[in-house]
Amino acid sequence: MSDLSPTLALACELISRDSTTPEDAGCQQLMAERLASIGFVIENLRFGDVDNLWARRGTDGPVLCFAGHTDVVPTGPVERWDNPPFAPKIIDGMLHGRGAADMKGSLAAMLVAVERFVAEHPQHKGSIAFLITSDEEGPATEGTVKVVETLVARQEKVDWCIVGEPSSTELVGDVVKNGRRGSLNARLTIKGKQGHVAYPHLARNPIHLAAPALAALAAEVWDNGNDYFPPTSFQISNLNSGTGATNVVPGELVALINFRFSTESTVDGLKARVTTLLDQHGLDYELDWTLSGLPFLTEPGDLLDGVAAAIREVTGRDTQPSTSGGTSDGRFIATMGTQVVELGPINATIHQVNEHISAADLDTLTDIYQASLTRLLV
Amino acid sequence: MSDLSPTLALACELISRDSTTPEDAGCQQLMAERLASIGFVIENLRFGDVDNLWARRGTDGPVLCFAGHTDVVPTGPVERWDNPPFAPKIIDGMLHGRGAADMKGSLAAMLVAVERFVAEHPQHKGSIAFLITSDEEGPATEGTVKVVETLVARQEKVDWCIVGEPSSTELVGDVVKNGRRGSLNARLTIKGKQGHVAYPHLARNPIHLAAPALAALAAEVWDNGNDYFPPTSFQISNLNSGTGATNVVPGELVALINFRFSTESTVDGLKARVTTLLDQHGLDYELDWTLSGLPFLTEPGDLLDGVAAAIREVTGRDTQPSTSGGTSDGRFIATMGTQVVELGPINATIHQVNEHISAADLDTLTDIYQASLTRLLV
Repeated sequence: MSDLSPTLALACELISRDSTTPEDAGCQQLMAERLASIGFVIENLRFGDVDNLWARRGTDGPVLCFAGHTDVVPTGPVERWDNPPFAPKIIDGMLHGRGAADMKGSLAAMLVAVERFVAEHPQHKGSIAFLITSDEEGPATEGTVKVVETLVARQEKVDWCIVGEPSSTELVGDVVKNGRRGSLNARLTIKGKQGHVAYPHLARNPIHLAAPALAALAAEVWDNGNDYFPPTSFQISNLNSGTGATNVVPGELVALINFRFSTESTVDGLKARVTTLLDQHGLDYELDWTLSGLPFLTEPGDLLDGVAAAIREVTGRDTQPSTSGGTSDGRFIATMGTQVVELGPINATIHQVNEHISAADLDTLTDIYQASLTRLLV
Repeated sequence: MSDLSPTLALACELISRDSTTPEDAGCQQLMAERLASIGFVIENLRFGDVDNLWARRGTDGPVLCFAGHTDVVPTGPVERWDNPPFAPKIIDGMLHGRGAADMKGSLAAMLVAVERFVAEHPQHKGSIAFLITSDEEGPATEGTVKVVETLVARQEKVDWCIVGEPSSTELVGDVVKNGRRGSLNARLTIKGKQGHVAYPHLARNPIHLAAPALAALAAEVWDNGNDYFPPTSFQISNLNSGTGATNVVPGELVALINFRFSTESTVDGLKARVTTLLDQHGLDYELDWTLSGLPFLTEPGDLLDGVAAAIREVTGRDTQPSTSGGTSDGRFIATMGTQVVELGPINATIHQVNEHISAADLDTLTDIYQASLTRLLV
């Protein structure tokens, strides 16, 4: 493997470390040593059992930050992998290994892109930063969110952030995520009165009481979305009621509900509308809300225009901004007022056995990151 | 306990045998010996691990049959009983023990009533029979239902049947059951398409699809009942959907449904209406039906009039015919075209710890059974 490109060689070094979440397994130290050697100031921020790295080159603004994570999801049954998950190998032009796509390949591309850019522009304007965590695939409570708190506390500003999450769908760079919907969960308990099915007049069946309200919740139009977001969606993911016995009317029903919401709706607004609807149905209920993430949006501007131009320059492609899909750590970074985009390789095999990525794509991604640096900091 | 009445003495003998379902523990043999000594022909009908007794005195019609069961429900934690469940004891006028109310007290009252009646009317008209099982509290598949099949196969007719189930609510004889609703169960599976909550357009949420149909089922008026039956009731006893994960749209929903239905509805009619309603909602579903019991009704006539007159004669009370409550073995006997009533002691403590019954009530019940015999077979 001595003829590997610098990006692929570094990707293999990272993949060969078993950093199953929340382990970092020395990945951040490897990155920090290389960053330190080109003038980055290194901070190791450990919270709980999570390693985080904040590295910065330069003291002025604007600050362009590369963000990502060294932890990977579990391999699942190792015997189902054609190639051992932590023994990276290029097979038919594809780099195989856990984290190849999500997201050690991106980390290697970022680092090599920055090395090349700094060699070419040692006096670049502004600052370059890295925000790397090992807690993205786990609870995500001791990672990026805590680093952001640290930066906010010392009023350290980040203007632009490129998150290396695998955003591409068919060709590298075809999609960048310029925002994400918010995610709001609740546990809804609807109360009835337990009894015997033979004496229904002595019981109040929470399933019967709940059904019209659940139908109304499922039919509700919460908003119509906007130019950047699809309409807010509501899903009941779990619904359980009953004792198991067929002759008992249950005492309560529990539903787990989730909103993926656009910037056209607010957390308080959604909560109020659910409450109003349940009240209209005369229900006795409890709601226990959990906010997983606020929506964020990076409108066209320096960052989005810059990465789009870089993608066009390197690949000839017009990229497609999108706010679809699940959450990422970008939601925490955006709370600083930072423009955030997610730009990374193809996401087809992430979290699966035999995770793999085109080796050539990682070199292309390196070029895109380098071109983005040139457009924003020269 | 030597000064006990014959009914109480026999009840104690039966209770002292641990005949937890499906055990008979010699109860039927004890009854059979006493019946044989007064001219009954005894048949022991064992099906599977269930003992059944068919005993008949006389060969002519009409046939008045006493029906009941020797098995009892489990005691639950014995340490919670004030008095050991199989050590019958009269405390403050109450006979305590498992089966005192359901229904060894009734069995003793029936047998003593018949002994007295036969002594007084050895040449009674028609026939007296006993149909006793030890499989009423269990699956009820090897007991009364099999004895009835045997009788039907040999064209042995039963005109009238008094089931000793505890029908009374506050005073012995205040209520007789002259019918029971039918019970029809189904497992309803509504199919959707599993997916990620972040991509709801790629999934079809069976909870959302089902909710309007479940609301419509719960709101439906199936019939208005009649003079003898309350309206047919529909209950969803169990409802389950979801993988447990909050970010997954489930693939299917399972509901267990139950009808308690009057003679105004039919099994086929209810099935057809459920199917029509689900089809109207455009659902992809499966229904797996189980019929637990057809409804039966004994309208005013020889039997109901006879027991009502006997109750009035013994207690001065007007009894209340009722079809409320759960199922009993009466539903199997009624399939022969037999007039069936349930007449037994107060049901307040059945299936509970410290099951007990008024000792005096069992003597009153003996008198009621004897008076019924006199009205029907003299």
